[in-house]
Amino acid sequence: MFKQFSIDGGVTAPSGFYADGIHAGLKKNELLDMAFIYTPKVANIGSIFTSNRFQASPLRHFQKHNIKQTNFILINSRNANAMTGKKGIEDIETLFGHLSQKLPIINPVMSSTGVIGVYLPLEKLIAGAEKFDLNIKNGDRAAQAIMTTDAYKKEIAIRVELEDGRTYSVGGMAKGAGMINPAMATMLAFITTDLEISTDELNRLLRKHSRTTFNAISVDGDTSTNDTVFAIANGEAGFYDEVSFDSTLEMVMKYLALQIVADGEGAKKLVSFHVRGAKSDNDAEKIAKTLGDSLLIKTALFGEDPNWGRIAMGIGASGVEVSEETLTIAYEDVKVFENGLNLFNREIEEKAYAIMRRKEFTIYCYLGLGNGEFKSYACDLGYEYVKINADYRT
Amino acid sequence: MFKQFSIDGGVTAPSGFYADGIHAGLKKNELLDMAFIYTPKVANIGSIFTSNRFQASPLRHFQKHNIKQTNFILINSRNANAMTGKKGIEDIETLFGHLSQKLPIINPVMSSTGVIGVYLPLEKLIAGAEKFDLNIKNGDRAAQAIMTTDAYKKEIAIRVELEDGRTYSVGGMAKGAGMINPAMATMLAFITTDLEISTDELNRLLRKHSRTTFNAISVDGDTSTNDTVFAIANGEAGFYDEVSFDSTLEMVMKYLALQIVADGEGAKKLVSFHVRGAKSDNDAEKIAKTLGDSLLIKTALFGEDPNWGRIAMGIGASGVEVSEETLTIAYEDVKVFENGLNLFNREIEEKAYAIMRRKEFTIYCYLGLGNGEFKSYACDLGYEYVKINADYRT
Repeated sequence: MFKQFSIDGGVTAPSGFYADGIHAGLKKNELLDMAFIYTPKVANIGSIFTSNRFQASPLRHFQKHNIKQTNFILINSRNANAMTGKKGIEDIETLFGHLSQKLPIINPVMSSTGVIGVYLPLEKLIAGAEKFDLNIKNGDRAAQAIMTTDAYKKEIAIRVELEDGRTYSVGGMAKGAGMINPAMATMLAFITTDLEISTDELNRLLRKHSRTTFNAISVDGDTSTNDTVFAIANGEAGFYDEVSFDSTLEMVMKYLALQIVADGEGAKKLVSFHVRGAKSDNDAEKIAKTLGDSLLIKTALFGEDPNWGRIAMGIGASGVEVSEETLTIAYEDVKVFENGLNLFNREIEEKAYAIMRRKEFTIYCYLGLGNGEFKSYACDLGYEYVKINADYRT
Repeated sequence: MFKQFSIDGGVTAPSGFYADGIHAGLKKNELLDMAFIYTPKVANIGSIFTSNRFQASPLRHFQKHNIKQTNFILINSRNANAMTGKKGIEDIETLFGHLSQKLPIINPVMSSTGVIGVYLPLEKLIAGAEKFDLNIKNGDRAAQAIMTTDAYKKEIAIRVELEDGRTYSVGGMAKGAGMINPAMATMLAFITTDLEISTDELNRLLRKHSRTTFNAISVDGDTSTNDTVFAIANGEAGFYDEVSFDSTLEMVMKYLALQIVADGEGAKKLVSFHVRGAKSDNDAEKIAKTLGDSLLIKTALFGEDPNWGRIAMGIGASGVEVSEETLTIAYEDVKVFENGLNLFNREIEEKAYAIMRRKEFTIYCYLGLGNGEFKSYACDLGYEYVKINADYRT
């Protein structure tokens, strides 16, 4: 088997990865707003991009150049470089043209988050990049620089020890506090490892685990133009161990995904919807996601109201085949509806209410129709969400 | 051709229709909470029910008895009779068993809205129904009795005059202030006419027009267990005129649908999303509905923020084939994005902001890809919505 240890360093924890965050003048008050990840040894890179039809320019630049290996990722906040047409891509090429005269970059990759529809401030970015010191290992500052409406930075690093004594690490950082927020575009995640992994294998595992991690969370049900997950492997460890990496990648992806939903705009709670006994995993997934997206359910979480009628409404609205007679709903271990019968009385309501007041809890839905199962993650939605999104540009 | 006149009377405007609302003790403070619609001449009835898989007991009772003709509809608020199993249907049968001993009812139909998961208070309903006077024509009181979180009653009546001098009327009332709200179950609409129309024809036209009326509105994107539209025709006019009825029914359905969305919980604005130039009407419908459902767009409407990036996000997120280069977005006649170019400057922003401050306006999206077109209707979403839905049961 293998052992996993939590360590410091974020994306710079694996051997041969460097990162830092600087202030390039995009944010006010000297806040960090631009970051890099660098590996002297060229790394394989896997990626997942948003399903939004209007993919932002950095995503189109990456696909245009069909990038499979890189040694440099440049990340900026405050400007999404989305809905910016051909000029959006040309700006990235111009920027990297300048940087390549100063920095030893190979197939550089860009990643942006911020306001939609505004061209990149090239001069600021070029001047900012001149401050980069590629010998710095400061994952903390990189994780800070990519924040937008995030309340806190999100990073993790895991050191893995195999039975035969070999070791490697996986690091990660992410930003995002709404599946999309305003014209501030969304969710970005960066995962590094010193394992030796092909681009195809990175892509396969990213897809495998995105279903139950990044794709299982919902803040507001909207889909950004910029959503991106990158995984890069520079091979410094000199080997690949599939079993432990599979497990560690899932751990890192789930940690970052839950950090994002817990930091949902204005959110105070992290709630899991665990659906079991569906006819198939796909059915369970549809129901769990409908529950996590429902505005009525999210406002009930905010109001700490154990209103199971809204859970039933969401299950029925999902479009999946369900049966009232075999349905059971529970808040943690407190059943409120069992095989078609309402169990609510004053005592049960008090118990359910006590659970609703927790910061984290699970709502279970047993459908009694098969073995399909899925777990989704959502936050509550209250006045703060409206405030952040109604007042954002003013 | 034909002429249409707005008249008083709501559902009692057509010949031979009676209705009233009474207080049966379901709501507090002597508020009206129970209503009937009665026609001495048995009428054909068409219906559309919710797509929610957990249909409430009144809907299942109607389908169990395969009702195609009736002379009596009983409506109550405060209790949805949903998630109540077999007992929910038996309760309706018990109730109508009692009423049939006092009232000349044939194939009676029930319609309920209110809290999910609670059995009907049969004694109150039976005692209440004893107060009914079937000779009263008071559409106003009926429309009041069916309200839940509605801020105002919703009714309409149209008198139609054909060229040859024949006349008939169409009346309607509805309730609903959220596609669903809490466990308060949703949207109910009742349409009456004295035309002679078969059940099949009523069903055909209800389906035809529901796509662009009741199904084109969104308050919060949730789907109730109780949504119902009934249309009943008692034939008192002695004829049928398809062309004018087709037009008048659409008018009545659109009026009631827009009244519901304008009364969206906490809403202050009624906004149309008019999508044109899609590859097909279906594509246009998907986009228009995605825009109407988007929380980020609804909070931007509330904040009166002409943030077109969110409109672009919604168009891209709809999953429909679109192109940035041929996309144009306008707030009424103010273009903000044209064929891939951001037109925003201080002057344009001021103009767009002035439109956002209106109570009603249209946002146009031209896709430039074909002739597909659809118009959806939505309200803004602000603090009041959260307050109503977070605090509802307390």
